[in-house]
Amino acid sequence: MEQLFVIKIGGNVIDDENNLLAFLKKFAAIPGLKILIHGGGKIATKIGGKLGIESKYIDGRRITDAETIDLVTMVYGGLLNKSIVAKLQLIPATKRPVTKEGIDFGFVGDVISSQLAVGSLQIMIDNNLIPVIAPLTHNSKGQMLNTNADTIASALAVALSKLYAVRLIYCFEKKGVLENVNDENSAMPLITKEIYQQLKSDNKLFDGILPKIDTAFAAIADGVKEVLIGNADDLLQNITEETPGTLIK
Amino acid sequence: MEQLFVIKIGGNVIDDENNLLAFLKKFAAIPGLKILIHGGGKIATKIGGKLGIESKYIDGRRITDAETIDLVTMVYGGLLNKSIVAKLQLIPATKRPVTKEGIDFGFVGDVISSQLAVGSLQIMIDNNLIPVIAPLTHNSKGQMLNTNADTIASALAVALSKLYAVRLIYCFEKKGVLENVNDENSAMPLITKEIYQQLKSDNKLFDGILPKIDTAFAAIADGVKEVLIGNADDLLQNITEETPGTLIK
Repeated sequence: MEQLFVIKIGGNVIDDENNLLAFLKKFAAIPGLKILIHGGGKIATKIGGKLGIESKYIDGRRITDAETIDLVTMVYGGLLNKSIVAKLQLIPATKRPVTKEGIDFGFVGDVISSQLAVGSLQIMIDNNLIPVIAPLTHNSKGQMLNTNADTIASALAVALSKLYAVRLIYCFEKKGVLENVNDENSAMPLITKEIYQQLKSDNKLFDGILPKIDTAFAAIADGVKEVLIGNADDLLQNITEETPGTLIK
Repeated sequence: MEQLFVIKIGGNVIDDENNLLAFLKKFAAIPGLKILIHGGGKIATKIGGKLGIESKYIDGRRITDAETIDLVTMVYGGLLNKSIVAKLQLIPATKRPVTKEGIDFGFVGDVISSQLAVGSLQIMIDNNLIPVIAPLTHNSKGQMLNTNADTIASALAVALSKLYAVRLIYCFEKKGVLENVNDENSAMPLITKEIYQQLKSDNKLFDGILPKIDTAFAAIADGVKEVLIGNADDLLQNITEETPGTLIK
């Protein structure tokens, strides 16, 4: 049998940023098959304190109440796990530059679909694993960045359209792109480029939907087969039959 | 090309637990290849408020400062992503029952290695992807549970030992199992069952190390090739040469 390292790091290694970086550098260099399992560290107690969540112990063992399970899910599964993965690999992005007007959006990442390495996603998809992706990216130097989820969905859809016939589906609370903002039942079944230009010049679309439609047309131009925008419930209910919501093509 | 659904759900679907459950039920039932990308929802603002992190916007767009990127990494990548994955699949566990003494540890999960489905890990490992695993489990009904990271490492090592020659490595701040608690340089190179019994009856071991060694022997009895306990730095430095730290076999 091939050799596999199952490596666990404890809290003390994680608590110190420099220790962690030194560790991960060496971990990355280990040849062969490997898994990394990390513990918690002191940061959960620190953030819990700020949130007013008291750490309770009986005989030295932590009692995990409803507040505490949310806390450790955030800190272990979110902050620590993603930071470790960012230092190893995740969706790379570029920090958004300061605008001409001098606005710095901070730790916001812009992704470029041609730079996405979708090989790992392909492996999962082809083996019937279902990737569940949070809208977080990194700058390839271990710094997490915040990215718009619509944008990530579109960038991944474009990158994957080289490998699959991709249908990109935006689920939200409305029934689609509304022709009349005040009428929830005015969802348009189809938007073509011509229809879109007309709607924009007529000033008919509500603000929030404009970037979604722009992103949709950009995705189609770059290889995505079609984009559907609509109500979460309706779309998935009938995804293989006649599609409700707004089809963009 | 085979069809792939790239499905994005927005914050409004996530904010309501019942909406989210209904959505995921339908998502799970979609036949064929699929990816799920989720947005943030209002919970980041809510938890940020409790932590004293103010949401700042310029022209309606969020400014992500250093505090905010940690916040969204926790909430989007941790709380939301793991909750969604738990509702779909993750490491299953059983909530620890109330003890004879009436102690309820709360949302704490005990894992059983024979119940771990390591198929998805195997796919990743065999394709040179490196799983990075946080010590979080779920009860197969969507409830997150908190589990000791040493235990998860051991349970996964055992489950994977049916497929690979597994070396389980516990990295922490000490140089190994110390023969003299007060002497950091007294790490023992080897512990066999006989040595362990002797050490225990001599009362020589510091408290924290006992469960680690017990877990190590249990893992070896169940198929793991060997267990190493030692300093994070030392172990990975020389992992393919002569191993520092304490070898358990």
